[in-house]
Amino acid sequence: MDINKDISEEVVRERTNKLQEAMRASAVDGFLLTQNIDLYYYTGSMQNGYAFIPSHGDPVFFVKRSVERAKLESGITVKELGAFRQFGETLAKEFSHVFSGGTSGTVTIAADLDVLPAQTYLRLSELLQRAGSSSIVDGSAIIRRQRMIKSPLEISRFEAAAAVVDEALNEALDFLKPGVTELEWMARVEYEMRRRGHIGLMRMRGYNQEIATGMFIAGSAAAVPTYFDGPAGGLGLGATSPQSVSRRAIERNEPILMDIGCCIDGYVIDQTRTAVIGELPEKLARAYEVSEAIIREAENGMVQGAICSALYAKALEQADEAGLAPHFMGYGADQAKFLGHGIGLEIDEWPVLAKGFDIPLEAGMVIAVEPKFTFPGEGVVGIENSYLITDGRPRALTFTREGLIKLP
Amino acid sequence: MDINKDISEEVVRERTNKLQEAMRASAVDGFLLTQNIDLYYYTGSMQNGYAFIPSHGDPVFFVKRSVERAKLESGITVKELGAFRQFGETLAKEFSHVFSGGTSGTVTIAADLDVLPAQTYLRLSELLQRAGSSSIVDGSAIIRRQRMIKSPLEISRFEAAAAVVDEALNEALDFLKPGVTELEWMARVEYEMRRRGHIGLMRMRGYNQEIATGMFIAGSAAAVPTYFDGPAGGLGLGATSPQSVSRRAIERNEPILMDIGCCIDGYVIDQTRTAVIGELPEKLARAYEVSEAIIREAENGMVQGAICSALYAKALEQADEAGLAPHFMGYGADQAKFLGHGIGLEIDEWPVLAKGFDIPLEAGMVIAVEPKFTFPGEGVVGIENSYLITDGRPRALTFTREGLIKLP
Repeated sequence: MDINKDISEEVVRERTNKLQEAMRASAVDGFLLTQNIDLYYYTGSMQNGYAFIPSHGDPVFFVKRSVERAKLESGITVKELGAFRQFGETLAKEFSHVFSGGTSGTVTIAADLDVLPAQTYLRLSELLQRAGSSSIVDGSAIIRRQRMIKSPLEISRFEAAAAVVDEALNEALDFLKPGVTELEWMARVEYEMRRRGHIGLMRMRGYNQEIATGMFIAGSAAAVPTYFDGPAGGLGLGATSPQSVSRRAIERNEPILMDIGCCIDGYVIDQTRTAVIGELPEKLARAYEVSEAIIREAENGMVQGAICSALYAKALEQADEAGLAPHFMGYGADQAKFLGHGIGLEIDEWPVLAKGFDIPLEAGMVIAVEPKFTFPGEGVVGIENSYLITDGRPRALTFTREGLIKLP
Repeated sequence: MDINKDISEEVVRERTNKLQEAMRASAVDGFLLTQNIDLYYYTGSMQNGYAFIPSHGDPVFFVKRSVERAKLESGITVKELGAFRQFGETLAKEFSHVFSGGTSGTVTIAADLDVLPAQTYLRLSELLQRAGSSSIVDGSAIIRRQRMIKSPLEISRFEAAAAVVDEALNEALDFLKPGVTELEWMARVEYEMRRRGHIGLMRMRGYNQEIATGMFIAGSAAAVPTYFDGPAGGLGLGATSPQSVSRRAIERNEPILMDIGCCIDGYVIDQTRTAVIGELPEKLARAYEVSEAIIREAENGMVQGAICSALYAKALEQADEAGLAPHFMGYGADQAKFLGHGIGLEIDEWPVLAKGFDIPLEAGMVIAVEPKFTFPGEGVVGIENSYLITDGRPRALTFTREGLIKLP
């Protein structure tokens, strides 16, 4: 089989070591990884199974399917999962130093409970209690914190994804004409991204959150609110796809929001540009300028140590000063309460530039910053770049030319 | 806002009534729906929130975002969710006939625990216990059983999806030439489906299961096993996309498996055809013939009252008689243990034609039947159609011409 390791054993070991440090700091004796993305990050493989990371010693990836493929991909030991009902005993035997370390009920096992379905959680709890652990605690914050800091290998994948988005957008701009529907144009962009290696999926961690490849939405259809936790919504293709592109034809002199992402070798990029065929109404053109001013200010502010919530507060202040606070990141009751979000293997990673997110920026974080303004009945304008936080100024990973894109 | 109801209030009421009947039969006092697809099925809207269905009386959809949009889409009453920490009190007040009916701990609330993340489940359990309910029980089987039976409205959506797959496949066949990569060709198919209304997502209920639009895989790359719970795998685009298309170029005289689906107005279709540029090796050509024989036999057998597991057993028997048992539905340790699966709003619906699934077929079920044979190093051949179970013979919803597709 033509399968190579995607990440080296050394990288997997570094990640595991760092997780184990965090586990010990939180008095967690073992971490059970269950979600495909979490499994990939700590093993190099997203085959079907469970990885168990003890706070001391070597981890094991217990695989249901495909064991053969997992062995080729994984940077940690792979064993057959075997009968699930025996999994407690399997763990107790394989990790006797974890499970016999304390008296029954004093062994603390964490898992990625923010994504693990309750049905499986309840079953696993039962199996682990038989093995001598207390109830499973939520360890997802530990994982999400670790994954905030990206390695050079990860950065190179964002760069590849940013190049694909730029190429696809430029190819597709030729097809952007009055009368073309949002759906038709997005199909074109997706085609250009897919043939360049977009994996065909954009992964989100949040329950019920889903996205195809972004939002391509124009005029009044763009300003329709949605359940999606982002600044722009979109009319969509009906109640079963209630966001992003619709069958509405693009018209002259209305804002066209092109919020586009793709996933290359697992990593997602996020970029928005605003276009118009003809001229934007003065009010919207001005709001677009404010979005650029906000992203410039964010670039100045996104240095190591800057507090995430303060960056959001600053943007809100700028929007308010421009008299656009009610339109910032959505309108009215449907405003999103953030300026930017971490990206990586998932689109909704940490940190979030939002109220309450009071942690400092660190070098290695990658954040999509997306100031946007929504005008019901008229449309959405804005800009978005993805940035790497460095020890100096942030480095933009997306590089499509900025400024309002005016088409004749 | 240009938003119409996707399903009528009458249809929503029928579905709710049927759910309430099943709840009463299971001594469930209230059902808390949390997942976007479950919400859509019982309300007509997949805005962000929770729907509560009492075993008697009218349900309420508590919406976080967008309340405005949910009011336009929903067939049941929409209320603002408000502060989540108050949700227990909100429910107790709104549904006092449910929560004050028994003494504390005797009120049984079900939820879709097969998909609800544990973190949210634990929080909801706490809130509901404060409202006087006992722990939340898993009600997912009730929902999945109800959703097995499709209405004429639902059937019409499958038909629309089947037409899109057929058109897209025919358009893309012109591009299928030696040297074209799996990725390039799939991008073409996806483009043709997307511009015809494919929503850009294929929803799966199973944890960690994901799929773009199917599997387009050829020769040795097709036979690489994956975590995906299906008969064919595929080399994929690396460890972060370890299934379906790869960058391998298609060659002459090897089997090309075209397992393609799309989602129109929420409903997914599933269809597979096998092609070859030139001639298939004798062994594979014969295996393809056996897959057609198995699907013909399944068509004869899929009548009301037929037992799902018996249909799988029959197919296994046919594979065995042809000397192909080790190759049926995957190879060796990575064989999938089913012949077909329900489809609908999700790709992995009930029933499953598999061992242990001992329920009888009923009119209104829609099942994708996909006999396939895997030959490591050589490829995968097979066929798949999606069928509606009727009171007579099953009606194929997919209609692309059958037989091995031979290209010059």
